[in-house]
Amino acid sequence: MNSDNEIRPGEVVVPWRATEDAGIAFIGRIETPWKTRADCPRQGQMDGPLCQIILDEIWREALTGISRYPQLEVIYWLHLSRRDLVLQCARQDKVPRGTFSLRSPLRPNPIGTSVVKLEAVQDCRLVVRGLDCIDGTPLLDIKPDRHAF
Amino acid sequence: MNSDNEIRPGEVVVPWRATEDAGIAFIGRIETPWKTRADCPRQGQMDGPLCQIILDEIWREALTGISRYPQLEVIYWLHLSRRDLVLQCARQDKVPRGTFSLRSPLRPNPIGTSVVKLEAVQDCRLVVRGLDCIDGTPLLDIKPDRHAF
Repeated sequence: MNSDNEIRPGEVVVPWRATEDAGIAFIGRIETPWKTRADCPRQGQMDGPLCQIILDEIWREALTGISRYPQLEVIYWLHLSRRDLVLQCARQDKVPRGTFSLRSPLRPNPIGTSVVKLEAVQDCRLVVRGLDCIDGTPLLDIKPDRHAF
Repeated sequence: MNSDNEIRPGEVVVPWRATEDAGIAFIGRIETPWKTRADCPRQGQMDGPLCQIILDEIWREALTGISRYPQLEVIYWLHLSRRDLVLQCARQDKVPRGTFSLRSPLRPNPIGTSVVKLEAVQDCRLVVRGLDCIDGTPLLDIKPDRHAF
C-alpha cells in the first residue's frame, strides 16, 4: 500500500479484508506514459497518447479478428488500490462520495475499464489511445466495444 | 463445468489452468429473468426487463449519491464459464473467432460489463434495465457510466 492509499479527512473505510471468491489471472500488461497515480489523467481520451497492451504469448490466437474493431473495451486490475473505502474524496474535492458513485481506482474489486481506439496490432501487442491507467497495470481482458453490435 | 462449456467443432483451447494473480470478492448478486445461458439475450437493452442488483449490506454507504446517475456500468463474474478458449464459435456461427474479438462469456477472466439504466434505489437494492446475464450472477463492481463525466 503506497502513500496514495492514505485516508483523507471525511473518508470512511469498512472493516473488511478482501475475500477470494474467485481468482483472476493477469494475461498481459499495459504500458502507458504515467508513472504515478497523480500523473494519470482523470479519464482516457481518444486523442490521448499512444499506449501499448502486451498480451502474454499463450493468448496470441485469441486476438484473431481483433483488427476489425476500431474500438475496444480494455479491462485491467488497479493493482495499487486499497479496497475497503466506502466514502472517498476525489482529487480536489472536499465532499466525500460513495465509492460506487465514483470511477476512482479505489474499490472493493479494483477493476478498471476503458474504451480505446485501436491504432495497430503488432503480433501480441496492441497500440491504442484512450487509456488512463498507470504504467505496468496488469491486463485482465479485451473485448470489442459494446457499440460494435 | 456444465454442458454449455462443451467445445464445439473448430473451437481451440490452450493448455492453461487459471492462475490466481489476485483475488476477487463477490459483493452482491444479480437477479435476472434468465435461468440458463441459452435464455440470456445476446446483449442487454435499455428497454429490457427489470433486473435487481442486491449489494451486500457492508457496502451500503458506498451507494451514497448513486441516484444522481441515470446510467451505471455494472461489472460481474460470469461464474459458469470455462476460461481456456482462444478460438470459439458464437451461437449460430460456424466460423471460429478469437476470444478477444467476441463479447462471449467464455474468456480467461470471465468478467462481464453492462451499461444499465437505473430505475430505482431501494436500500441495498438497485432496480435496473439493460443486463444480459444469468440469474444469480455474482456482482463485482458498480460505477457511473463513463459518459457521465
